[in-house]
Amino acid sequence: MSRIRARDLGIIIGGFPTGPKNSLTDVQGVLVGHTTLHEGSGTHIPGEGPVRTGVTAILPRLGNVWQNSVCAGSFILNGAGEMSGLIQVQEWGLIESPILLTNTHSVGTCSEAVVSYMTGIYPELGISHDVLIPLVGECDDSWLNDIVGQHVDTHHVIDAISNASSDRVEEGSVGSGTGMSCFDFKSGIGSSSRIVKIGSQSYTLGALVMSNFGEIQDLIVNGIPMGKMLCPDFEHLSKRTRNAGSIITVIATDAPLHGFQLNRLAKRAALGIGRTGSYAAHGSGEIIVAFSTANELPRVASDTLYSLKILVDQEVNPLYRAVVEATEEAILNSLFMAEDFYGIDDRFCPAIPLDRVKTIHQEFAELGRKFY
Amino acid sequence: MSRIRARDLGIIIGGFPTGPKNSLTDVQGVLVGHTTLHEGSGTHIPGEGPVRTGVTAILPRLGNVWQNSVCAGSFILNGAGEMSGLIQVQEWGLIESPILLTNTHSVGTCSEAVVSYMTGIYPELGISHDVLIPLVGECDDSWLNDIVGQHVDTHHVIDAISNASSDRVEEGSVGSGTGMSCFDFKSGIGSSSRIVKIGSQSYTLGALVMSNFGEIQDLIVNGIPMGKMLCPDFEHLSKRTRNAGSIITVIATDAPLHGFQLNRLAKRAALGIGRTGSYAAHGSGEIIVAFSTANELPRVASDTLYSLKILVDQEVNPLYRAVVEATEEAILNSLFMAEDFYGIDDRFCPAIPLDRVKTIHQEFAELGRKFY
Amino acid sequence: MSRIRARDLGIIIGGFPTGPKNSLTDVQGVLVGHTTLHEGSGTHIPGEGPVRTGVTAILPRLGNVWQNSVCAGSFILNGAGEMSGLIQVQEWGLIESPILLTNTHSVGTCSEAVVSYMTGIYPELGISHDVLIPLVGECDDSWLNDIVGQHVDTHHVIDAISNASSDRVEEGSVGSGTGMSCFDFKSGIGSSSRIVKIGSQSYTLGALVMSNFGEIQDLIVNGIPMGKMLCPDFEHLSKRTRNAGSIITVIATDAPLHGFQLNRLAKRAALGIGRTGSYAAHGSGEIIVAFSTANELPRVASDTLYSLKILVDQEVNPLYRAVVEATEEAILNSLFMAEDFYGIDDRFCPAIPLDRVKTIHQEFAELGRKFY
Amino acid sequence: MSRIRARDLGIIIGGFPTGPKNSLTDVQGVLVGHTTLHEGSGTHIPGEGPVRTGVTAILPRLGNVWQNSVCAGSFILNGAGEMSGLIQVQEWGLIESPILLTNTHSVGTCSEAVVSYMTGIYPELGISHDVLIPLVGECDDSWLNDIVGQHVDTHHVIDAISNASSDRVEEGSVGSGTGMSCFDFKSGIGSSSRIVKIGSQSYTLGALVMSNFGEIQDLIVNGIPMGKMLCPDFEHLSKRTRNAGSIITVIATDAPLHGFQLNRLAKRAALGIGRTGSYAAHGSGEIIVAFSTANELPRVASDTLYSLKILVDQEVNPLYRAVVEATEEAILNSLFMAEDFYGIDDRFCPAIPLDRVKTIHQEFAELGRKFY
Repeated sequence: MSRIRARDLGIIIGGFPTGPKNSLTDVQGVLVGHTTLHEGSGTHIPGEGPVRTGVTAILPRLGNVWQNSVCAGSFILNGAGEMSGLIQVQEWGLIESPILLTNTHSVGTCSEAVVSYMTGIYPELGISHDVLIPLVGECDDSWLNDIVGQHVDTHHVIDAISNASSDRVEEGSVGSGTGMSCFDFKSGIGSSSRIVKIGSQSYTLGALVMSNFGEIQDLIVNGIPMGKMLCPDFEHLSKRTRNAGSIITVIATDAPLHGFQLNRLAKRAALGIGRTGSYAAHGSGEIIVAFSTANELPRVASDTLYSLKILVDQEVNPLYRAVVEATEEAILNSLFMAEDFYGIDDRFCPAIPLDRVKTIHQEFAELGRKFY
Repeated sequence: MSRIRARDLGIIIGGFPTGPKNSLTDVQGVLVGHTTLHEGSGTHIPGEGPVRTGVTAILPRLGNVWQNSVCAGSFILNGAGEMSGLIQVQEWGLIESPILLTNTHSVGTCSEAVVSYMTGIYPELGISHDVLIPLVGECDDSWLNDIVGQHVDTHHVIDAISNASSDRVEEGSVGSGTGMSCFDFKSGIGSSSRIVKIGSQSYTLGALVMSNFGEIQDLIVNGIPMGKMLCPDFEHLSKRTRNAGSIITVIATDAPLHGFQLNRLAKRAALGIGRTGSYAAHGSGEIIVAFSTANELPRVASDTLYSLKILVDQEVNPLYRAVVEATEEAILNSLFMAEDFYGIDDRFCPAIPLDRVKTIHQEFAELGRKFY
Repeated sequence: MSRIRARDLGIIIGGFPTGPKNSLTDVQGVLVGHTTLHEGSGTHIPGEGPVRTGVTAILPRLGNVWQNSVCAGSFILNGAGEMSGLIQVQEWGLIESPILLTNTHSVGTCSEAVVSYMTGIYPELGISHDVLIPLVGECDDSWLNDIVGQHVDTHHVIDAISNASSDRVEEGSVGSGTGMSCFDFKSGIGSSSRIVKIGSQSYTLGALVMSNFGEIQDLIVNGIPMGKMLCPDFEHLSKRTRNAGSIITVIATDAPLHGFQLNRLAKRAALGIGRTGSYAAHGSGEIIVAFSTANELPRVASDTLYSLKILVDQEVNPLYRAVVEATEEAILNSLFMAEDFYGIDDRFCPAIPLDRVKTIHQEFAELGRKFY
Repeated sequence: MSRIRARDLGIIIGGFPTGPKNSLTDVQGVLVGHTTLHEGSGTHIPGEGPVRTGVTAILPRLGNVWQNSVCAGSFILNGAGEMSGLIQVQEWGLIESPILLTNTHSVGTCSEAVVSYMTGIYPELGISHDVLIPLVGECDDSWLNDIVGQHVDTHHVIDAISNASSDRVEEGSVGSGTGMSCFDFKSGIGSSSRIVKIGSQSYTLGALVMSNFGEIQDLIVNGIPMGKMLCPDFEHLSKRTRNAGSIITVIATDAPLHGFQLNRLAKRAALGIGRTGSYAAHGSGEIIVAFSTANELPRVASDTLYSLKILVDQEVNPLYRAVVEATEEAILNSLFMAEDFYGIDDRFCPAIPLDRVKTIHQEFAELGRKFY
């Protein structure tokens, strides 16, 4: 069976409609780009290869986020990981940099490259204007990738930024997701979106994940303990033994939320991660960052005051529900869109068997319909 | 059908065995007591009644926690609520007070009463020794209770402490859970426990919840969207419309964990809350406190140094899994053990229909077995 | 020498002008009231007396803060203390309750009384509207007060609220400050304010402290190690030996700041505390809450969106400077306005000797002028 | 006058004795190394030079911190800055990496280089063992340095690590401090230490700062408003106008403290920063990290349990005092040891005039002695 997304397999998470692309890029102005590094095969020669890694770039606002930053928040479900630059997001409640995702040992390279890229575009940056602190998240792909080789180079990072588009986000083993696995299946990048109506207004919320956590028996698909059911078929496989997992989640919305509300939105994404089976294992870095494109916070202010348009707290609940749904579905998409994969030392990481998932899910859905 | 617990209905959450009582009190030395206030009926006369509230007391260590405190941690999934005294837990990583649960407007009374009780027992408290900051959590029971009447009195609090025992925790509409509802069903207090083996050692972990959140359509029972299935039968009922929910969760373990680890344990309990259907609605205070009885931290030290026995971080994962399971099951028990209930203005809050839940769950379980 | 404030003694902290009252109440709409309990004398009979305590009430906005809450933030320099209700401030970034200060063992009573008072005023509270979580901070006055007697009663709390006015805040041994001491001198309540100009606009910032920390040798007055200089004269006195101190600080401003900015403002108040000599001793609870009256956040919204007027981050620095100054001066005022005092067991707590402080400070000031 | 340290100028901060070197390296096993980049002069050609920057490396335990990590804590006084890797410190309460300091735009390069260096030394890192998340702090030296040129290279980082020794830390314009300025004077790296006696045991605590904040009029030297007194002589100088400051502080101790206590220790370092005149301006990143070398936390555990030796909370106060003192003195040393300096575009950054500081301080000290 060719790889299709959860929804195309009949798996509908939650109740809100999706955006037209069911992708982070349904949020107007948000762009995503990938650079995929997939080179060599066979025996692992540390520092040389095989290479199974990459970079994913998320631009919160058509690239000009430095001049007009976005309101932002974050939540650290498990801090056994890194999102370089997050301290400033937590302090100011805004993002003024592209967001990069990569493997753990390439965070530095990405950070260095973003500085280089941005100072190229904004010559006043670091001269007459402030310096830049890039936002770079990571997962550990050392199960499948020669991570010690630090194969991501500056130009890979700049390519990912330059390639960024508003197209539906490519999913599975692409970009920074190239060498990731989740619940012992191949995974990588996944995305999903929701449209919620609040008052007379429609808002879009999108989630993008780089998923890399969990063991097979923990996987839950739309409430079904799918991992336990799939276990017997994969018992013979060698699996990642270190708890080297993690998941980075990026949430975007065009709803006008301020920093406190975006912190809360990020926190609720963690509940979506939990619904797929995560128990936030000791070594699994699980970090969520969320931003809203609704307000522009200008770097150079013409006045001492500005006005922020904000959604009334009592009306935010649909977005809180939606972020749980979208995150859960994004994780499923990261699994469903990845294919069978060979990593270093010819380690085989299987794609989740979609036909079997579909069969099981259909029977459960049918049983469910009996009771509705 | 008489009220029985989730497990007795055949609903097994997760994979670890439970303790002998499947209750918080399986953790050696932890005591729980209730005072239930259920008086009057009919029309709500603000300030007078009807009264549907109470107090629940958790003693972390046979009452002498003031002299020998326990390591502790906490997590605030949603701070739209209150646990008075939590600031000190967050600062010091220990608990030196009983933990009280009650309704929102009786937090003050509980705090006052605990001070009174403890200064009675420890005459040096506040004189030659430090003062006491009690730990008091709350949920809002104003849907069913005359909360403005502040009907909890000092002696009710002292009764709850005095009644505390190591018996299996009473569940449903008792103690502070008397007037609570969850997913539009009657709920209250629920508990569960797990035994995990780490190395050659067995550890017990227990959860106790006071549950008061959610709308019927959100309820998930062991992965099954039970709430949606039960909806049609309860459509006609008037339901709580304000987001007045919340859940307080208390986690105890005899595993030797320090404050950082207990913060993390508390965080993972939130994933268990999420698995029952919570999305942490704007107004739903969701606060978790966790403690370990393994080390005693003496108030009066004989030396400047002491030694803390600690579980190696890499070995904690079974406890992280267990806390998700136990919290999820405790919430179910809080629902399953509560009976049909009439509150102020004869508001009817139905018990969750166990026969229907059982039927549905059995069919899903049977279908599941087909795929194992 | 009669008691006068720091500024009247010639001690000018920092560079901004003060408001007309040099007091928290310079911020338009902020009211402060005290209830002082000073009864009995001589031998301490635990539970009976002597009584040296009280209540201070701060109303953030002419009493109607429940209907139209204010933006708020907080910082915990040292969490060895309590501000009941702070969890909600941290979550939502707003305050919707009066702020009460009292002794550690009377937090519960204050909380209970505020609920009672507010449900009296707002009959819909806890019925058709949300429940109330009062904000109550404490310090430990057990060195001078029979704290185990819990002498604060409901009516004392309501009196403090009812008495609240926009007059210059009474200072020294009044209200909740009655039994407090600081740097081994008698202290209590102190206040100060600053006017800052940002763009073409003037803003007022006020600080109120309940001070109760430190040992004599640590006291710094406007950079001068005054405590060390005063030490010899007070060597014979018996002093508080437990680290039972703390300080609660309330900051108000009419500058339009949102929650993130108010968290930051609160953090900087801690630097003002540090400048008087605090090193935040282990047992000293040091908690700061800050609010802005500039925006009204209505409980009942007519629309799903609202607009928040906010000061541009790059322009906030004068307020950050001002809060350090005002907090430092408020602490000095809490000392300078308190008189010689006898507590339980006739414990003598001396007023700081103003004539000596004046002499020393004048000589330093004179020397300073030589170098300007 | 040649550059000498504060203490050699007669300025004694606080009351504890210093270690033999009065330096971070007084803490047994802690090593510090610098790479200084000082190339070119004259007109700023963005991307080319002049270069005024560098790298400072702190090794918490003779380089083997990966195998046996140290307990750690942190505090963010102002998050307008970056310490990459801090999330993991906050989560686990330990440090397992060298700590690197550099300019804002070279954080990525340092991170990349540390990974490269450590995988060279520990070949199992990222293969059979966990991946590494380096700890890299920054300040913005763009006032004096061509920061957009990103002149720090991998070998500079490795040199700083390789050069690290237990010698007294070099201070002033060296290493990462090369291009930094503080209170409009040239600054850079500074260090100081204290010996405290607790029970019968002596402990050492050291502080190292990279200082880069403040305006001249804010500088306080040992309580004296020195900046205001020096102002007139420097009025004509052009000064940094953007709020581009910050300070990174590293605290080490051999006292047995756990993570909660080290978080608290880090928080108190902020009070030392405040005493030199910082009000934590909006754009000034002020981040503190603290570690204790007393316990070794082995990566590969032989047992599921380990034992942590911990100082009783009630006995920690001397360390809390000491960290305030040592931080304050380290900042002074960073100023006092730096010489007159020319940066990009021949910008002149003057050394603080020590003879004048000495004269003023002596007169104040003399006046003070009159009152002791």
